[in-house]
Amino acid sequence: MKPREFIDALCAIVGPQWVLSDPETVAPYECDALFHLQQRPLAVVLPGSEEEVAALVALCVRAGIALVPRGAGTSLSGGATPVAEGIVMAMNRLRQLMVDPLARQALAQPGVRNIVVSQEAAGEGLFFAPDPSSQVASTIGGNIAENAGGVHCVKYGLTVHNLAGLRMVGGEGQVLALGEGSLDQPGLDLLALVCGSEGLLGLVTQARLRLLPTPQAVRVLLGFFPDIEATCDAVSRIIAAGIVPAGLEIMDQASLQAAHRYSPILALRIEAAGALLCELDGEADDIEEATTQIRTIFRALGVIETRQADDETQRTQLWAARKNVLPALLRSASDLYVADCTVPRRVLSRVLQRIMALSDEHGIAVAQSFHAGDGNLHPVLFYDSAVAGEEERALRLADAILREVLAEGGTVSGEHGIGSEKLHGMCWQFSADELDLFHRLRAAFDPHGLFNPGKAIPTLHRCAEFGAMQVARDALPFPELPRF
Amino acid sequence: MKPREFIDALCAIVGPQWVLSDPETVAPYECDALFHLQQRPLAVVLPGSEEEVAALVALCVRAGIALVPRGAGTSLSGGATPVAEGIVMAMNRLRQLMVDPLARQALAQPGVRNIVVSQEAAGEGLFFAPDPSSQVASTIGGNIAENAGGVHCVKYGLTVHNLAGLRMVGGEGQVLALGEGSLDQPGLDLLALVCGSEGLLGLVTQARLRLLPTPQAVRVLLGFFPDIEATCDAVSRIIAAGIVPAGLEIMDQASLQAAHRYSPILALRIEAAGALLCELDGEADDIEEATTQIRTIFRALGVIETRQADDETQRTQLWAARKNVLPALLRSASDLYVADCTVPRRVLSRVLQRIMALSDEHGIAVAQSFHAGDGNLHPVLFYDSAVAGEEERALRLADAILREVLAEGGTVSGEHGIGSEKLHGMCWQFSADELDLFHRLRAAFDPHGLFNPGKAIPTLHRCAEFGAMQVARDALPFPELPRF
Repeated sequence: MKPREFIDALCAIVGPQWVLSDPETVAPYECDALFHLQQRPLAVVLPGSEEEVAALVALCVRAGIALVPRGAGTSLSGGATPVAEGIVMAMNRLRQLMVDPLARQALAQPGVRNIVVSQEAAGEGLFFAPDPSSQVASTIGGNIAENAGGVHCVKYGLTVHNLAGLRMVGGEGQVLALGEGSLDQPGLDLLALVCGSEGLLGLVTQARLRLLPTPQAVRVLLGFFPDIEATCDAVSRIIAAGIVPAGLEIMDQASLQAAHRYSPILALRIEAAGALLCELDGEADDIEEATTQIRTIFRALGVIETRQADDETQRTQLWAARKNVLPALLRSASDLYVADCTVPRRVLSRVLQRIMALSDEHGIAVAQSFHAGDGNLHPVLFYDSAVAGEEERALRLADAILREVLAEGGTVSGEHGIGSEKLHGMCWQFSADELDLFHRLRAAFDPHGLFNPGKAIPTLHRCAEFGAMQVARDALPFPELPRF
Repeated sequence: MKPREFIDALCAIVGPQWVLSDPETVAPYECDALFHLQQRPLAVVLPGSEEEVAALVALCVRAGIALVPRGAGTSLSGGATPVAEGIVMAMNRLRQLMVDPLARQALAQPGVRNIVVSQEAAGEGLFFAPDPSSQVASTIGGNIAENAGGVHCVKYGLTVHNLAGLRMVGGEGQVLALGEGSLDQPGLDLLALVCGSEGLLGLVTQARLRLLPTPQAVRVLLGFFPDIEATCDAVSRIIAAGIVPAGLEIMDQASLQAAHRYSPILALRIEAAGALLCELDGEADDIEEATTQIRTIFRALGVIETRQADDETQRTQLWAARKNVLPALLRSASDLYVADCTVPRRVLSRVLQRIMALSDEHGIAVAQSFHAGDGNLHPVLFYDSAVAGEEERALRLADAILREVLAEGGTVSGEHGIGSEKLHGMCWQFSADELDLFHRLRAAFDPHGLFNPGKAIPTLHRCAEFGAMQVARDALPFPELPRF
């Protein structure tokens, strides 16, 4: 099929007004939020129904044309970067939404924006828990592709934990229903497999989302500590005390200082080496009890000051200490690289200190503010691309951090995905057997290999090109235990 | 490889004392709890380590011998029935266990019995939530294979929701680590796919289980209602009120009467058409508040009597109203068939009434006591196998119930699995495209098709033999909604 013929066939399916192929209209789709990766696609198509999605996939199979699914394009790892000679399938027209308060579920098409679900459910006293920082723009389809988290995932889990069912179109244009109906389906559970698969397994056409009752009350505590170890210890002790906070965020001194420069009115204690923000939600008396426990933990760890906020204005002010960090750093003169990786909570303090040592070794400054509750680190690396070799040094540091994290039992990606950016990290994290299995599973869904090719899962050939070998991990041996 | 040679090779891997091949020692492994299906295996082998499991799988691949994994053999659907000329791999020697209170996890080998995890974690104030009624005997490996639930899964989820990672041996003897490390792994999420796969994808050698803090207090409420609709309505209203009970069980009049005959001392209100048992756990004041709400709901629905139990002895008594039903029915003269299926909570009342109508049509009496909170029905069908045609009529009724359930958006299996017993139901529930995808995924893990062959996923050929076609379901259309 010739390109012109193919585009006519696209138009025949969705109508010509929903096919973009001239350079100007296609331009906004040439990259996602990993801006430096750009690629012009053959065309952008906006289907209006599941039937159209299925027909488009069948057409792509006939024509041998690759397709990249896209929601709002907020991916930070190039998951929605177009592929050359392929099309972008933009799901933004599919934005129907229905809230079912009895089932505590919402039925959403993939183009529904994340925040709209909670807005629509609010009248029923319900909300959708995943709240990635992109939530005003990012779509349910994108959230599913990336298994989006957010500041509250320490308590409420990731997208996969808040998803009850999917309808999707597989790699031969077939419509598949996953996990629809009731709890505990027989057959293979494909829901979690598809969630977080970065668009490689199929195109979601409908999602059944779990909704949760809106908490009665919310409180934020912000403790400033004299050293970063005490800040990390506070996290461990809060968890060990049986408290399940809705959010647990750590800021290091560099982050506090940046947030302070951005809005001095917050009067942050910038002499502190670390700060811990802890959000509690639920019933008022449970929050009161947890607060007493947390204040005791904070005092035992030599807290400098603890602030507390109950109403929304005050809470927003305390959250600003965390949320202003990145905007503040972006304002600074240097270039930034925001890393993304996750470590088990128990090694937080050790890994943070190793990152600072690596920062010194590489001569690249780092600020750290991150989701401590789920161990999701976001080291921000400062460099000046105008200084010869500095960008390369920063990227070497980023890789050294990933390898350190892996050696401690962590992962090379937290919430930002692998996309086009971090394929080499996959070679470090997974064995050849595991990567091979991923490819077989992918081929089971998409035998023609047309969905988002080249993303998320490196071929073994690609790993060899990277010169990448799996980082050895502890085999998790059991200590000698009496047998039961 | 000749059988004798193969058995020698088994002995060389695990030691001759861990290979059973004479009829007497093999006999206990010839069936699981679906007793009428029996098959003598070639041999039973009991590996003592992950390395031995991997070596055994590699040997089976070389010899082309099928293998059936087995825990305690409590499966109700023939999941652990041996296959002819195949071996049984009994995981009972692998029973090391380590509790990690900081991570709130336990590391367990597959042969650890379910109840032992909570017993070992109790000292740390933690417990393992899945509690299938087989929990004293059934093993973690079996719980994972069947995605076991239990009376508390309405609040705490199934095994898949309480699992953080796995190590397993795949179909070529390769060791795979799934979901180890931290939250939000990149790569494909294989954990949920493997959980509930009934031994078709691999042999679990180690599981990382999530533990939860032991609730402060537990209360049980038991309400007797004049009709079954009111009993079901109580479930909906409790959920709609934002209460998350730890258990929600319904008993119909036939079940109450059976439990009453079994232990009259409970003085159950057998004039009631239905009873709802509601367990609450958590902080004492939250339980108090929920109790007030539930009593109000019960009164509005014309409750005949509400009983309440706080201490363990009293709670056990109220639970006996539910837990004695099956023992009581087993004592009765007739044969029993315990069905297992799940429906969305919203259609509970309608489906129960349809089942009673089908019971009348088929002339087969039915008692219903079940996990109402997650819509998991267990209709008990009474028949007398000595009366010509009665068993067949009962099985026809069981199938009619499954088709009814499917038409209402339910599933053909709740917690008992598909195994050898319910393959035809899979043909009704899933489309040819979906079954085909299951087979492709299976082949990705087990290209030689040696793991538990013939179970859980029917071939399309088998479906044709059954004359089975997918039961049409609503396409879940969106109502006409304004677009955002």
